[in-house]
Amino acid sequence: MSGNTAGRAHYEELDRADRLAAFREKFDLPEGVIYLDGNSLGPPVKAVQGGLDQAVSGDWAKKLISSWNQAGWFNLPTELGDGIASLIGARPGEIIVGDSTSLNIFKLATALLKPDGNRRKVVVERGNFPTDIYILQGIVRLFEPRFELHLGEHDEIPGLIDEDTALVLLSQVNYRTGRRFDMREVTALAKTAGAPIIWDLCHSAGAFPIDLKGCGVEYAVGCTYKYINGGPGAPAYTYIASESIGAFEPVVTGWHGHARQFAFEVDYDPEVSIKKALVGTPSVLSLIALKEALSVWKDIDLNAIRAKSLALTDAFIALVEDRCAGHGLTLLTPREHDLRGSQVTWSVKNGYEIMQALIERGVIGDYRAPDAIRFGFTPLYTRFTDVYDAVTHLKDVLDTQEWRNPEFAVRRTVT
Amino acid sequence: MSGNTAGRAHYEELDRADRLAAFREKFDLPEGVIYLDGNSLGPPVKAVQGGLDQAVSGDWAKKLISSWNQAGWFNLPTELGDGIASLIGARPGEIIVGDSTSLNIFKLATALLKPDGNRRKVVVERGNFPTDIYILQGIVRLFEPRFELHLGEHDEIPGLIDEDTALVLLSQVNYRTGRRFDMREVTALAKTAGAPIIWDLCHSAGAFPIDLKGCGVEYAVGCTYKYINGGPGAPAYTYIASESIGAFEPVVTGWHGHARQFAFEVDYDPEVSIKKALVGTPSVLSLIALKEALSVWKDIDLNAIRAKSLALTDAFIALVEDRCAGHGLTLLTPREHDLRGSQVTWSVKNGYEIMQALIERGVIGDYRAPDAIRFGFTPLYTRFTDVYDAVTHLKDVLDTQEWRNPEFAVRRTVT
Repeated sequence: MSGNTAGRAHYEELDRADRLAAFREKFDLPEGVIYLDGNSLGPPVKAVQGGLDQAVSGDWAKKLISSWNQAGWFNLPTELGDGIASLIGARPGEIIVGDSTSLNIFKLATALLKPDGNRRKVVVERGNFPTDIYILQGIVRLFEPRFELHLGEHDEIPGLIDEDTALVLLSQVNYRTGRRFDMREVTALAKTAGAPIIWDLCHSAGAFPIDLKGCGVEYAVGCTYKYINGGPGAPAYTYIASESIGAFEPVVTGWHGHARQFAFEVDYDPEVSIKKALVGTPSVLSLIALKEALSVWKDIDLNAIRAKSLALTDAFIALVEDRCAGHGLTLLTPREHDLRGSQVTWSVKNGYEIMQALIERGVIGDYRAPDAIRFGFTPLYTRFTDVYDAVTHLKDVLDTQEWRNPEFAVRRTVT
Repeated sequence: MSGNTAGRAHYEELDRADRLAAFREKFDLPEGVIYLDGNSLGPPVKAVQGGLDQAVSGDWAKKLISSWNQAGWFNLPTELGDGIASLIGARPGEIIVGDSTSLNIFKLATALLKPDGNRRKVVVERGNFPTDIYILQGIVRLFEPRFELHLGEHDEIPGLIDEDTALVLLSQVNYRTGRRFDMREVTALAKTAGAPIIWDLCHSAGAFPIDLKGCGVEYAVGCTYKYINGGPGAPAYTYIASESIGAFEPVVTGWHGHARQFAFEVDYDPEVSIKKALVGTPSVLSLIALKEALSVWKDIDLNAIRAKSLALTDAFIALVEDRCAGHGLTLLTPREHDLRGSQVTWSVKNGYEIMQALIERGVIGDYRAPDAIRFGFTPLYTRFTDVYDAVTHLKDVLDTQEWRNPEFAVRRTVT
């Protein structure tokens, strides 16, 4: 090995000392794969299969329609919401699970934007994950010409929040760079300006401790299929602080949010609880998989998650900079701990092909256009030796120029 | 037995002659239960468990994020949409599966209502399943005071459709009474008036043949957990006629509807296909269950479904009127074949308690406030002897006044 980093034995030692190491056993992971894309889709916990067996062959098949009550299906959106609450510093009764992150943003934003007010600006980071921006564009068009979308770079955001701001939507951690906003500071700024702010927690929930309460956050959304491991397209969640639920007036008003759902009344009358953010019938089987995934989180100290995440990402950065020097990789992720989530992204020429070569070798990260290779570090099942071995593969791919395989270029054109 | 109907042997004979009888074997149904609530939640097909096993342990666990492409997860919304198309007289490429019926109505209605036009009336049946009405109320409030909701009784609907009508939303079959609109006639009426009309097919798809094309229908939605048997809260679908897709401008604009989803562009640019009606990431596991349910429909002649449905419902009506006479049951469902779907509903005093007593006996229908007992007839797994036996139980419950069990009254107060 080269200069500034230790050899593999050092990382084996770190794995032996890892207090979270045992959690890896709870996951169903393929042999021979180093999975550094759990920030895109987490792997299944082993209990998912049994949970779905019970839901299908036990509850659905045996008790049919009665399972909505008897198997607790009706309670899943709030029960799982309470499970997520403990991950993000919310209280029970403040989170409802259901629908997609995109739709949940739509639901919150349409309720928070006041066409009869006089604020015009809808503020979002230009580099935000695009769907959040698309949703806001749709809403702005819906009310045309009432509101204006203001896109700003990360550092420009505070300057865009003022007395003309009707809504702010920010992802706490940027999906591409891993750069992190100061949630407390920006929330306080928005509060001072009198502007509602929605936090998107897709790339932060389950990655490190979040203190929604402590930061004074009123509204948030997030997905559950990344660090939380809820499954492909697992239902997302909506958070409304308990003191803000009463005044929240939903625009997307469906029967599952009605105060007396089975009275079949003609007029919509919202639940007085977080359930007012429910709309249609939730996808039970997907909720069951999420329930099993959440059960793993029950005994976990999020500070230990964060400590390991920082150790993994620090090691990865140091190893790449040491062992892959001279190959033109530029770190896009901030080095400072407080400024990042649990991923490391590099910009590099031919990033697409480099990632394809890594995937061929069983090191799965992902490529984000136009030039970024992104690696997610998920402390529940990622080992320190995985970090070391991944860098060995990356170094080999770069040293041998294995990425020049013409197949990869073909793949790029069809993706 | 009493006067006008045959004894059980006759229904046994009908079961022996039933060309659809073999399909019952494809379902996982509990022993000793007569399930007449498949119009609320269809039972699982036996293949669901295997399909989910493969999706979880095969695709998700083994291939992780790659399964979005390699296991075809990205294609599920259109692939399953094409499967539904053949059930409702649509063409491939006109249906997308995802989200709930409520949300799909929201998506269509917000796109079809034109605030810059001059039409004011939003027309819906007063007795429609409430969530459709709630969704429209939310939209009307969003645009206040631009539009007005006009609720009409079934027979008043044609009179409400005129040159001031901005949107019509109708359920083809009423969830409570089973009464059916003439889709061809009302669609033509709306077209003549220049008003867009959305059909809700929740209680019709899979219950009888529907000819969306032939009726000139442009927009429709429906759920998949009733007659289609997709599972609890299975994703719903949206239909847009191919000739109307181009002009359709979505308001709820998420990344799965973007023409170049993985280019991560800042501006929303919709797909040119039905995929423009997609928003966020779909719940894959729920889609997998639906996929298995749809596979059963591949070889089915919907005319045979309708013929058996009418035979089952006619038999049920005749048997109840004959054997339960004098107990105050009033038929709410039209007797005329063309005016009904595949359910039979009676109003009766103490309907809640009567249904509870039936459920205790293993005859599962449902109660719909304030006084209706509702029985769904699903030709794929309901036998003629089920009809006969269900009426025997109903007669016993009424004759013995078994429904007076004080427990049932208690249950009513907590439901």
